[in-house]
Amino acid sequence: MRTHTTETVGTLLMAAALVAATCSGPSAPPAARATPAADPLPSWNDGARQAIVKFVGDATMSGGPGFVPPPERIAVFDNDGTLWSEQPMYVQLAFALDRVKVLAPQHPEWKTKQPFKGVLDGDLAAVAAAGERGIVEMVMATHAAMTSAEFEKVAADWIASARHPKYGKPYTECVYQPMLELLAYLRANGFKTFIVSGGGIEFMRPWAEKVYGVPPEQVVGSSVKLQYELRPGGPVLVRQAAVDFVDDKAGKPVGIQKHVGRRPVLAVGNSDGDTEMLEWTTIGHVPSLGLLVHHTDAGRETAYDRESHVGRLDTALDEAPSRGWIVVDMKADWKRVFPF
Amino acid sequence: MRTHTTETVGTLLMAAALVAATCSGPSAPPAARATPAADPLPSWNDGARQAIVKFVGDATMSGGPGFVPPPERIAVFDNDGTLWSEQPMYVQLAFALDRVKVLAPQHPEWKTKQPFKGVLDGDLAAVAAAGERGIVEMVMATHAAMTSAEFEKVAADWIASARHPKYGKPYTECVYQPMLELLAYLRANGFKTFIVSGGGIEFMRPWAEKVYGVPPEQVVGSSVKLQYELRPGGPVLVRQAAVDFVDDKAGKPVGIQKHVGRRPVLAVGNSDGDTEMLEWTTIGHVPSLGLLVHHTDAGRETAYDRESHVGRLDTALDEAPSRGWIVVDMKADWKRVFPF
Repeated sequence: MRTHTTETVGTLLMAAALVAATCSGPSAPPAARATPAADPLPSWNDGARQAIVKFVGDATMSGGPGFVPPPERIAVFDNDGTLWSEQPMYVQLAFALDRVKVLAPQHPEWKTKQPFKGVLDGDLAAVAAAGERGIVEMVMATHAAMTSAEFEKVAADWIASARHPKYGKPYTECVYQPMLELLAYLRANGFKTFIVSGGGIEFMRPWAEKVYGVPPEQVVGSSVKLQYELRPGGPVLVRQAAVDFVDDKAGKPVGIQKHVGRRPVLAVGNSDGDTEMLEWTTIGHVPSLGLLVHHTDAGRETAYDRESHVGRLDTALDEAPSRGWIVVDMKADWKRVFPF
Repeated sequence: MRTHTTETVGTLLMAAALVAATCSGPSAPPAARATPAADPLPSWNDGARQAIVKFVGDATMSGGPGFVPPPERIAVFDNDGTLWSEQPMYVQLAFALDRVKVLAPQHPEWKTKQPFKGVLDGDLAAVAAAGERGIVEMVMATHAAMTSAEFEKVAADWIASARHPKYGKPYTECVYQPMLELLAYLRANGFKTFIVSGGGIEFMRPWAEKVYGVPPEQVVGSSVKLQYELRPGGPVLVRQAAVDFVDDKAGKPVGIQKHVGRRPVLAVGNSDGDTEMLEWTTIGHVPSLGLLVHHTDAGRETAYDRESHVGRLDTALDEAPSRGWIVVDMKADWKRVFPF
């Protein structure tokens, strides 16, 4: 019997290798538009595509053995590395680094305190050396002590102006075209699509609806504690510098139960952190489908799996065959990677 | 400035006066059916009804000053005393008392330990004397140490067989007919309806969809911590004997933010515990509507407000006029109270 606890702060978000980044170039926002009825998945080659189309066809065939009643058509998607690029670093970590620079004038003590000093000096090795605990401290310091509404604006402004270091595009364009098609295809077939990510819930909500067509109430993520206050200017929720929930690994089934209250029938992930979500969706739960995106495409994106510090895919890849999870080979299965 | 914390376990669920209860009589389940288009709110007299119809009419009039875009049409409803009867005691407390009796053979120590002894002896004064802390201990002892799926079955079986002590009907029939109509009317006008209750989220979900038309993913409530385990028989979530979240008072706006991620435009409550939810929905947030059900009907239901231990309505009633909240006078505003 394997036992997990969701109490550890340790897994928070992004205890990742830090890689230097250069930024450039603006561009227009992508549209999560529905694909033509003729071919709902035009960016998919045959392979994983066939398993998806069969599952959805069966799920919507009333009276068939694979039928799933509409209320139970719950599909959950990891975000980092599944719906958008997580290399060379988690997008929310890039956000945190930028926030350190913006907030530094209000924190003179950061000039001598790691990992803040490392961020300000451009010494990312020093940042990495601060370890998980240092990263968590940095995320807390840059993500808290403001209201949820203020944070939403900060996150929305940043996502509108920041650029991916490799592609020179807004991060919200560095999303996977085949996944936009899959989200739309599922919704067209009566599925409710949820994001279930280790990333911050209030970091994702401001743009998830526009980019993925997933409304705020269908975003599940990690969170800090919130405190209600009735101020003279009106009621606010204040983000506290304390972790409330870590939606990663064994936290993912817990997050799904908290928010959805049913076991999903379809789960899509790309790393070992998605293992428990796929287990919860598929084991002893028929019909169901688990998909694992394998980043095999060094040419169009990045090739990484067992040795990566970001989005490591190792034990889940070993578990896939015995669980019947479909491994999506990015290079072979996807005609296109990005919308651009 | 008023400040609240959601950390206190103190407000959990049901620190209520305990009133002796007698049970009787079976009956058929109610239907949360949509009302005829001709009159969407047939059980409502003019009064509060006019404010509701005007708000919904304005919210759906594109281009008008009261228009609310469909994604923002979020309506939140308290449950106990708002959607169903909470007198003579919270339904979930009746459930906990019954669970103590069922589980007693496995807990010989309960024969001498309060509040368990009081429950087994039928000495509810002794139970009440154990206070909030005793009640919380009892709820934890009867609601934890099983999987979420097991708890769902226990709750579903109980709700199917238990009877309201006053009406002799299943609790799921002791729901307010005008509220069933309001829920259906809102959904017919593009609103998404959520329950936001101090009651247990996993206690409500097994029947909320059938009774209210509210799916599990739109139920917000109090919760215990969950732990994921992969057992030989498959994955489970185990309910821990530890409070995770108290969805009452200042916890309600927090629960709404966690689950919905937007401020609602319509909130319906009936007690001081709903104050912060109505504030969060209405203050500085236009257009919006707050409704407070006032239990004024001793003949058809129960009349109670400022002095009641269950569902006390005191400070919120004072706050209502200055906030513009509509007080629903049950006796005057409702043609019918229950479906039966």
